[in-house]
Amino acid sequence: MGKIALSELSDYLAKSGLDNELVGEPDLVIFAVNTLEDAQEGEISFLANSKYVDRLGKTSASAVLVGRSDEAPAGISVIRSDEPYKALCMTIIKVHGHRRHPQWGVSERADIRESAQVGPDANIAPGVTVSENVRIGKKVTIYPGCYIGDDAVLGDDVTLYPNVVIYDESVLGSRVTIHAGSVIGEDGLGYAPVGPKWIKIPQVGRAVIYDDVDVGANCTIDRATLGQTMIGSGSKFSNLIAIGHGTKIGSDCMIVAQVGIAGSTTVGRHVTIAGQAGIVGHIEIGDDATVAAQAGVTANIEPGVTVLNSPAAPIADARRQMIAVQRLPDLLKQFRALEAEVKALKATIEASAATKTTNS
Amino acid sequence: MGKIALSELSDYLAKSGLDNELVGEPDLVIFAVNTLEDAQEGEISFLANSKYVDRLGKTSASAVLVGRSDEAPAGISVIRSDEPYKALCMTIIKVHGHRRHPQWGVSERADIRESAQVGPDANIAPGVTVSENVRIGKKVTIYPGCYIGDDAVLGDDVTLYPNVVIYDESVLGSRVTIHAGSVIGEDGLGYAPVGPKWIKIPQVGRAVIYDDVDVGANCTIDRATLGQTMIGSGSKFSNLIAIGHGTKIGSDCMIVAQVGIAGSTTVGRHVTIAGQAGIVGHIEIGDDATVAAQAGVTANIEPGVTVLNSPAAPIADARRQMIAVQRLPDLLKQFRALEAEVKALKATIEASAATKTTNS
Amino acid sequence: MGKIALSELSDYLAKSGLDNELVGEPDLVIFAVNTLEDAQEGEISFLANSKYVDRLGKTSASAVLVGRSDEAPAGISVIRSDEPYKALCMTIIKVHGHRRHPQWGVSERADIRESAQVGPDANIAPGVTVSENVRIGKKVTIYPGCYIGDDAVLGDDVTLYPNVVIYDESVLGSRVTIHAGSVIGEDGLGYAPVGPKWIKIPQVGRAVIYDDVDVGANCTIDRATLGQTMIGSGSKFSNLIAIGHGTKIGSDCMIVAQVGIAGSTTVGRHVTIAGQAGIVGHIEIGDDATVAAQAGVTANIEPGVTVLNSPAAPIADARRQMIAVQRLPDLLKQFRALEAEVKALKATIEASAATKTTNS
Repeated sequence: MGKIALSELSDYLAKSGLDNELVGEPDLVIFAVNTLEDAQEGEISFLANSKYVDRLGKTSASAVLVGRSDEAPAGISVIRSDEPYKALCMTIIKVHGHRRHPQWGVSERADIRESAQVGPDANIAPGVTVSENVRIGKKVTIYPGCYIGDDAVLGDDVTLYPNVVIYDESVLGSRVTIHAGSVIGEDGLGYAPVGPKWIKIPQVGRAVIYDDVDVGANCTIDRATLGQTMIGSGSKFSNLIAIGHGTKIGSDCMIVAQVGIAGSTTVGRHVTIAGQAGIVGHIEIGDDATVAAQAGVTANIEPGVTVLNSPAAPIADARRQMIAVQRLPDLLKQFRALEAEVKALKATIEASAATKTTNS
Repeated sequence: MGKIALSELSDYLAKSGLDNELVGEPDLVIFAVNTLEDAQEGEISFLANSKYVDRLGKTSASAVLVGRSDEAPAGISVIRSDEPYKALCMTIIKVHGHRRHPQWGVSERADIRESAQVGPDANIAPGVTVSENVRIGKKVTIYPGCYIGDDAVLGDDVTLYPNVVIYDESVLGSRVTIHAGSVIGEDGLGYAPVGPKWIKIPQVGRAVIYDDVDVGANCTIDRATLGQTMIGSGSKFSNLIAIGHGTKIGSDCMIVAQVGIAGSTTVGRHVTIAGQAGIVGHIEIGDDATVAAQAGVTANIEPGVTVLNSPAAPIADARRQMIAVQRLPDLLKQFRALEAEVKALKATIEASAATKTTNS
Repeated sequence: MGKIALSELSDYLAKSGLDNELVGEPDLVIFAVNTLEDAQEGEISFLANSKYVDRLGKTSASAVLVGRSDEAPAGISVIRSDEPYKALCMTIIKVHGHRRHPQWGVSERADIRESAQVGPDANIAPGVTVSENVRIGKKVTIYPGCYIGDDAVLGDDVTLYPNVVIYDESVLGSRVTIHAGSVIGEDGLGYAPVGPKWIKIPQVGRAVIYDDVDVGANCTIDRATLGQTMIGSGSKFSNLIAIGHGTKIGSDCMIVAQVGIAGSTTVGRHVTIAGQAGIVGHIEIGDDATVAAQAGVTANIEPGVTVLNSPAAPIADARRQMIAVQRLPDLLKQFRALEAEVKALKATIEASAATKTTNS
C-alpha cells in the first residue's frame, strides 16, 4: 500500500492474472488513483470506455489504465489490458488499500457489561454500549454511538460504523461491515387486529447476518416474529434498505439503495435488486434473478429471470407493454381513422345494395 | 410468562375468548413459540393454513396450534381452534411477553438538565440528553444515544430505542414506542423562492404523537411550519417512513415501510398504506381507505376506497387498466390485422364497383 | 425577534420591499404566528387563498395577513398585500426567527483529538467525536452523538443536529445544516464481480457539500469511489434521500423526501426533484429541469424540461400516454365492436358476390 512504481504495478497486475503491457516510464512513482478530471501529477487514472479516448488529452494524470488499443498523448504512460476496469479495481486496492480505522483499544468510556465477552484485539470507541451476555469475536472495530443489545453475537473482524444499533439476540457473522446509522433486529410490523385496534405481537425471533455481508447506511433489517430473518453470506447492501421480518436473502446478492422487501419472502443466491424496487411478502425470488429499479414484484420470480415495471413482468413482456403504451396515443388516432373508414365502406355497400335493389 | 403446560395454555385461550380443543398431552410443558422449521422439542408452533398440513410431518415441535380439522402426526399435541393465527398471537404474548428492557435507573451519565422534570420509575441510559424544560411522565425507558430537545413532552410508559432524536417542543403521548434511529420533529422542507435562491422559513410548529403509537426504525416525522404535525392514537408505523410538515394522520392507521406522505395532507382513521406508497401534499384520505404498495396518490380518496397504481386509481379502474395494458401488445397486432382486412375489403368493393361500371 | 406591534410589522414588510396596507389596530402587539385553526388572541395568521376567506370567521387570531381584496370580520386586523404568502414568510422570520440552539461551549465531554482544529465560538455538545486532523471553522454548533471522521473539514456556522455522521475526509462548506441521523461520505456500493462473489473496491474519493446546503434527517450521501460526490451551494434536501457515489448536484436544487439518485449522475442547477423519484446513474439532468414525484428517470433530461412517469417522459408525452391508458379499457371494447362490424361487412360483401355469381 502507498507509493508504487509503474513497473511494479504492472508486475502486480500480471501476477494477479491480468495480462498487461506498460508503455511509458517504468520508474514513474504513483501515489494515488483518481478520475481523469481530478488527477494530478503523480496520480494514475483510467479510461473505462475507448469512445472517451479524447479525454486523455485533458487529464493531468501521469499514467492511465487503458484498453488494448487506446492511444495516449505523449507524456502519459499507459498500462494496456483487456480489462481496464478490473485493472482499476486492483490498482485502487494496491495503492490505497482499505480504510484505516481510528484506534481506541477498548475505551474505558465504552459501557461494556461484565457478562459480555469481547475477543482479543478489539477496537471499541467511547460511547459504545455492549449489553449483557453479548459475545464478540476477535479484532472487531466498533465506532462511537453504537449500541449492541443483550445476548447479541458478533463474529471476528466485524466493523460497525458510528451509531449502528444491533438489537438484542441479533447475530452477525465474521467480516460483517455495517455503515453508520443502520439498525439490525428491530421489531417488525407485527400486529393483530382486534376490532379497529392493533395489538402488538411480540417479535421473538431474531435477525441473523452471515459472513462477509456489507450493509450500507441507515438501513433497517427487522428481526423475525418467530425464527429468523437471514441475510446470506457475501451479500452487499447499499443505503436506506428495508428488510421485513422473517425474510431470507441468499448469498452474494447485490441490493441497491432504497429497496424494500416485505416479510416472509425468500430471495435466492446472487440476486440483483436495483434501486427503489419493492418486493411483497411471502413470495420466492429464484437464484440469479434481476429486479429492475423501481420494479414492484408481486409474484414469484423464476431463477435467472429479469423483471421490470410495477407490477413487475419478465423483461420481454414488460418492454413490449412499455413500447405498446408509448404507441398508444398514435393507436387511438389510427383507431378513429379506421372506424371512419369502416363507416364509409358500410355506407358505400349500403348505397350499392340500394342501387342494386332499385336496378332489379 | 415463561414455561406453561399445554392444558394451562388451552384454558388461558378459552378464558380469553378463543374456544379450542386440546388433543395430546395436557401436562406437556412448553417454553417457547417457534416456526415449524426452527422449533425444537418443548416448543410450540402453528399452522396458519391447512393446505400446508404436510409440514407437520417434518417439524420437531412438541405441539402445534392448528385449525379445527387439521390432523397432526402421532407424537405431536395440537390445540385446535377456528382461529389458529389468533391463537398464535395470544400464545406468543403469554409465553414470551414483551421485551424486558435493560435497567439503568436514571443513569448519572445521562445529561439531564435541571429544568427538566422526569416522572417516577424512569429508566434512562448513559449517553441520553434531556434538554431544558423537558417534561417526562412515569416509567419511561430511554436507551443510549437518544436526544430530547428543549421543551419536549413525553407521556407515561414511553419507550425510545437507541439513537432516537426528539426535536424541541415535540409532544409524545403515553405508551408511545419509537424504534432506533427515528427522528421526530425535524424541520420540514419549508423554503420561499427569492429569484433562484431558497430562503428558509423557520419551522415554528411542532410534531405531536398521540397515545399508543408505535414508530419503526429510521423514520422521519417533520414538525409543522405552523401548528402541528399529528400522528393519531394507536397508529403503527414500520421503518424508513417520511411524514411531511403539517400532515395529520388519524388513529389506528397501519403504515408500511418506506411510505412517504408530503406536507399538509390529512389521513383519516384506520387507513392502511402499503410499502413504498407515496401521497402528495394538501389532500384528504378518507377513513378506512387502503393505499396499495408503490401507489402514487395525487388526489383525495373517499372513505373505504382501495387505490392502486401511480397515479393511483380505485382498484376496479386500476385493475381494468392494468389488464388492458397487458393485452395491449396483442391489441396492436390485432389492430394491424383489422386494418389489413379493411384495406382488402375496400379493394374488393372498389374492384366490384369497377366491374359493375364496366358491365353497365 | 419576539413581540411586535402591527404597525411596526407593516413598516418592516414595506421596508423589505413588500407594499402593504394595515387595516385595524396599529398598536396591537402580536407575539406569534399560527394557523387559522390554532391561532389564539395575540397571534397573527394568514390567508393564502382568497377562496377560503370564510375561514376568517372562525379564527381566534387577532390579525391576519391577507390578499389585496380580502375582507375580514370586525375585530380582526389585517395586513393586505399582493403576496400574503411572502408576507407570512417574512413575518415568521421577524417574529420567531430561527432556532436558538442549546449552548454547550466546547464540552469537556466531547471527544476532540488534539490534532483537530476548532475555530472560535464553537458550540460542541457532550458525546460528540471530532477525530484526527479535522478542521472546523467559526461558530459551529454540533449536537450530541455526532461523529466527525479523520481529516474532515467543516466551514463556518455549520450546524449538525444530533447523531449526524460525517465520514473521514468529507468537506462541508459554510452555513451547511444537517438534520439528525444523516450520514455524509459513507462508502458507495462499489464492488467488482469475481465469479459469483463481490470484491470491495475501496472508496477513496470523498463527499463535498458546498455553502448554504441544508440536508434533512436520515439522508445518506455516498463518498466517491475516486474524486468527489458534490452537492452544490444553496441546494436543499428533505429526508431519507440517497445520493450515489460520484454524483454531482448543482446549486439551488430542491430535493424532496425519499428521492434516490444513483452514482456518477450530474444534476444541473435549480433542478426540482419531487418525492420518491429515482434517477439512474451516469446520466445528465439539465438546469431548471423538474422531475415529478415517483418518476423513474433513465435517460438525460434537457434543461427546463419537466418529466414524469416511470420510465420518465416529458410531461406532454407522459400525460398523453396516461390519458390513453385510462381510455384503453374502452378502446378494447370499441375495438371488439369494430372487428364485429368488419366481419359483418365482409359477410355482406361475400353474400353479395355470391348472389352476383349466381345471377351471372
